[in-house]
Amino acid sequence: MISTQSPGKRLGERTVRFSHPPAVAGFASIAGKRESEGPLKGTFDITVDDNSFGESSWEKSESRIQKELLTLILQKTGLAPTEIQYVFGGDLINQCISTTFGLRESNLPIYGIYSACATMAEGISLASAMVDGGFAKNVLTLTSSHFCSAERQYRLPLEYGGQRTPTSQWTVTGGGAAILSSEGDGPYVTHMTTGKIIDYGIKDASNMGGAMAPAALDTIETFFADTGLTPNDFDLVLTGDLGHVGLDILRELLKRDGLNFNDNLADCGVLIFDRDKQDVHAGGSGAACSATVLCGKILNDMAEGRLHRVLFAGTGALLSTVSTQQGESIPCICHAVAISNRREG
Amino acid sequence: MISTQSPGKRLGERTVRFSHPPAVAGFASIAGKRESEGPLKGTFDITVDDNSFGESSWEKSESRIQKELLTLILQKTGLAPTEIQYVFGGDLINQCISTTFGLRESNLPIYGIYSACATMAEGISLASAMVDGGFAKNVLTLTSSHFCSAERQYRLPLEYGGQRTPTSQWTVTGGGAAILSSEGDGPYVTHMTTGKIIDYGIKDASNMGGAMAPAALDTIETFFADTGLTPNDFDLVLTGDLGHVGLDILRELLKRDGLNFNDNLADCGVLIFDRDKQDVHAGGSGAACSATVLCGKILNDMAEGRLHRVLFAGTGALLSTVSTQQGESIPCICHAVAISNRREG
Repeated sequence: MISTQSPGKRLGERTVRFSHPPAVAGFASIAGKRESEGPLKGTFDITVDDNSFGESSWEKSESRIQKELLTLILQKTGLAPTEIQYVFGGDLINQCISTTFGLRESNLPIYGIYSACATMAEGISLASAMVDGGFAKNVLTLTSSHFCSAERQYRLPLEYGGQRTPTSQWTVTGGGAAILSSEGDGPYVTHMTTGKIIDYGIKDASNMGGAMAPAALDTIETFFADTGLTPNDFDLVLTGDLGHVGLDILRELLKRDGLNFNDNLADCGVLIFDRDKQDVHAGGSGAACSATVLCGKILNDMAEGRLHRVLFAGTGALLSTVSTQQGESIPCICHAVAISNRREG
Repeated sequence: MISTQSPGKRLGERTVRFSHPPAVAGFASIAGKRESEGPLKGTFDITVDDNSFGESSWEKSESRIQKELLTLILQKTGLAPTEIQYVFGGDLINQCISTTFGLRESNLPIYGIYSACATMAEGISLASAMVDGGFAKNVLTLTSSHFCSAERQYRLPLEYGGQRTPTSQWTVTGGGAAILSSEGDGPYVTHMTTGKIIDYGIKDASNMGGAMAPAALDTIETFFADTGLTPNDFDLVLTGDLGHVGLDILRELLKRDGLNFNDNLADCGVLIFDRDKQDVHAGGSGAACSATVLCGKILNDMAEGRLHRVLFAGTGALLSTVSTQQGESIPCICHAVAISNRREG
């Protein structure tokens, strides 16, 4: 006999309210040159002038970001590696080698995850569940992306100097890491809403914002329906990397459905670059886009009381070069976590 | 203040003993032509003569396997899709498109996972944790692989007709799925041990069994050290896809370390093909190797009382074509779950 009743932690269709909301015990961010020259300048822990990070290939540069993130977050939290029970890590590069090679010498128990650019949101969700479920005291999650490793894998060799379409986005070079813990002064992850695959039939791999907007809509609407909360309960509802095109579409869809935001809807892909001055077309993207913004500006703002309650809705386009070459449309996903300076959700 | 004390569910360094061991409420397997002609003939739910599964590309064939697995396991368990709270799915194809496209119309909440050929073991671990942690009643995990999609991605176009070295393994075409549930008559997942990345410096991508053996050793030894159990407590300790070469190495390493097995150590990559008659060189591999063997023969044997207690140690080689081309060695991982017909661990 299989019971169909849901456990008490579940709210509505797809949301969990954590019984003992895990604390964000630490967070860290690393950003590349262009990112550190943009509007979020000064919010990252480490910035570089040389995007090679001293390595001999772009994939090794991206692995190096993950390795440095681990060192950095252990330093910032004062935790020893042996105090971390799990790592959830992943990235965009085929077979997630940035994570694997970055953490190869870490000696940490690790589960690989993949939600494209929603990887940070998946990682925070699963890390929080492992802590709230009583399996761990401290769980690390981290992700990265690199403009140069992504560009040559997904699109064209950099040397080709190809033109970019107006809806295209710029993959963020950098990475973010967070440690979720059973103890700490907050902020706390109070809820998680798990994404479904949403595919509206968009086939233009240079318009990922447009493709992902319906997935963001679905998860954000589900979160509010499941919890009974409203946009007014949040200082900020922050999508992953819809960019300017995707965020405009999302605004329109939310308005159509009667979900009203004041100035409290924003997107990491819009925030991270200055469109007018930085030639990034429709904004930032990549797994590091939402990871560096969350683990840079946003969590700093929460720690310093400028933000109190944030819904972080990471968005991911689950395409590959092969799926695009075979004429497929772009399946997308959005995972959301609610983060609050107060432990009650 | 961050506490470093571990919660009560933890045993030793890297193992969890589930408080309320989740039941395997259902399992399903699909196998391709060669697999269904081998020694495990008759243990799979669905077999095919045509490995294209009626699709127009090998990647679409592999997605079709995942789609059919979902239909099949819902049929076998009698569960409606709405009764599944989470899916953990992943595969070997770049950006895990087999899973994404296979489940695109499923309307299910899904977290993507990646541990190469250890994906089934990671999926059972996380699905069990979500159930035991009180987040879900029923969680589905599934994975797939396909000889033809893997061969052209990782090695050479099939049309090239390349020679294979003696240590190379044959990627299994097929897939396996399991549903972990808070209720049911068992078998039960009693423990999970999480893998670390282990890299002994092997660079030959045609000797993945040799590369993975030390990871299997590490996780199996950790499991026994953490739990205080011994090989004699298990009817079977089953590794993922070490194949003949890797299993021989593992046997030698275990013997060196004083862990003695009778006939109760086996490997899915050895079991699934007949080396003498099927021209597979060192045995089977691929994410579907351990998934089809576990969700075919092994769970059937447990259900029918021929096996009572199994340690399932999925093994994965976390390489990519890029990492190999850049001269890197092969980082490997092994995740283990203990499965027992008795609920107590």
